[in-house]
Amino acid sequence: MRSAADGAPSFLFVPELPGAGSLLALDGEEAHYLRRVVRVRPGESVTASDGEGTLADLTVLEAGDTIRAEVRTVRRVDRERSLEIWCGAPEGDRADWLVEKLAELGVATLRLVDTERGRWERAVRREARWERLAVAALRQSRSAHRLRIHPPESLPAMIAGREGRGAAFLADPAGAPFVVGGPASAELVRAAVGPSGGFSEAERNMLARNGFMPTRLTGTRLRTETAVLAMATLVMVGSRAGPAT
Amino acid sequence: MRSAADGAPSFLFVPELPGAGSLLALDGEEAHYLRRVVRVRPGESVTASDGEGTLADLTVLEAGDTIRAEVRTVRRVDRERSLEIWCGAPEGDRADWLVEKLAELGVATLRLVDTERGRWERAVRREARWERLAVAALRQSRSAHRLRIHPPESLPAMIAGREGRGAAFLADPAGAPFVVGGPASAELVRAAVGPSGGFSEAERNMLARNGFMPTRLTGTRLRTETAVLAMATLVMVGSRAGPAT
Repeated sequence: MRSAADGAPSFLFVPELPGAGSLLALDGEEAHYLRRVVRVRPGESVTASDGEGTLADLTVLEAGDTIRAEVRTVRRVDRERSLEIWCGAPEGDRADWLVEKLAELGVATLRLVDTERGRWERAVRREARWERLAVAALRQSRSAHRLRIHPPESLPAMIAGREGRGAAFLADPAGAPFVVGGPASAELVRAAVGPSGGFSEAERNMLARNGFMPTRLTGTRLRTETAVLAMATLVMVGSRAGPAT
Repeated sequence: MRSAADGAPSFLFVPELPGAGSLLALDGEEAHYLRRVVRVRPGESVTASDGEGTLADLTVLEAGDTIRAEVRTVRRVDRERSLEIWCGAPEGDRADWLVEKLAELGVATLRLVDTERGRWERAVRREARWERLAVAALRQSRSAHRLRIHPPESLPAMIAGREGRGAAFLADPAGAPFVVGGPASAELVRAAVGPSGGFSEAERNMLARNGFMPTRLTGTRLRTETAVLAMATLVMVGSRAGPAT
């Protein structure tokens, strides 16, 4: 654990965080973690995130069978950039680690898109597992925000239902090179990546007509999950860092 | 398979590619792939890579129990940028997919570094598996170059033995933000990422004294393998794309 190495307080996921001054009883995984892994003691500080943009500093009051804590301070953390990935089905169980990595990188939303050449047939059985991976990544990255995962939808339904303006990219080996900064540093960014067999021509055209800019990532071909991760890194890290001045 | 969707020729890994005009007998995995998966026929074209920067176009002459082909043309492909990752041990078997993703992204070399807080104890047993993953990724990405994986060494030995000048980065949450372009677009780039417990202070100082620039990737904490992948994407894709003009 890095927290052990750098002395940062333990980090919890507490979905319904009460306001400053409130008392809080912890149970389930978070209590187990504090009791068995951290061996927390009364008087110690821990940090909690509700996954919705709130971080709180807690002081542990009781660390027996029940763990009770007081909420000392609460603060809002806004996302610098909201990245929404539209992801076609990758091969096998490759979505598992994709979920973990997108959550670590601070991606806001993963939307599963059913396409002509690939459907998310495994998604229903994986939902609970993905939620656990997203929460574990929130703890690991000490983030105020949790990755949201939406169930599979068809591409036309997703296009019709999208809300908010922003920049939109389509991963496409025949597109223009990705440019750091510019549209990629918009507050809301969408990025669409096809399934392992790729988007069909009709789907690519539909995306392009709806403002998704065909964008090349590398000179080589990338698997679905690799292209998604490259896109997420470039938007979340590359645009944050900004171009050389 | 994307190759099926876009009609590109099948892609093989042939370590000892002979010159143009030569005849070639294929066996092992490549022959199996052509016979059983592609169902190749005489007269068809396939592309081959030796993993050392050479690509060849082959014409299949015989596709029975033995597969024979003629080398029609041979061409050299230089790496635009040579990225060498110095990687501390991640948790569990997370190195498996790291190898696959670094190979897909076109990283040149993965060097395993034994550190104060983490040793590559599993590396010896995984070598054959990693080689297979690197070759599979070469085929998938249709690359002229194969990821090279070096066995574990201590950090001081790696620093003493390094060759060639270039830019060097150390992934460090307390460092300066990553800047696309600039040093990251050098021909040779090294990037060091600590094990799951992080580099010790002495190790970080040793790297900084030897020209590794402490560099921050995100505002959040990343696991070892996530930081490596983010670094690889920024250097291999971000620098290729270049900053906005």
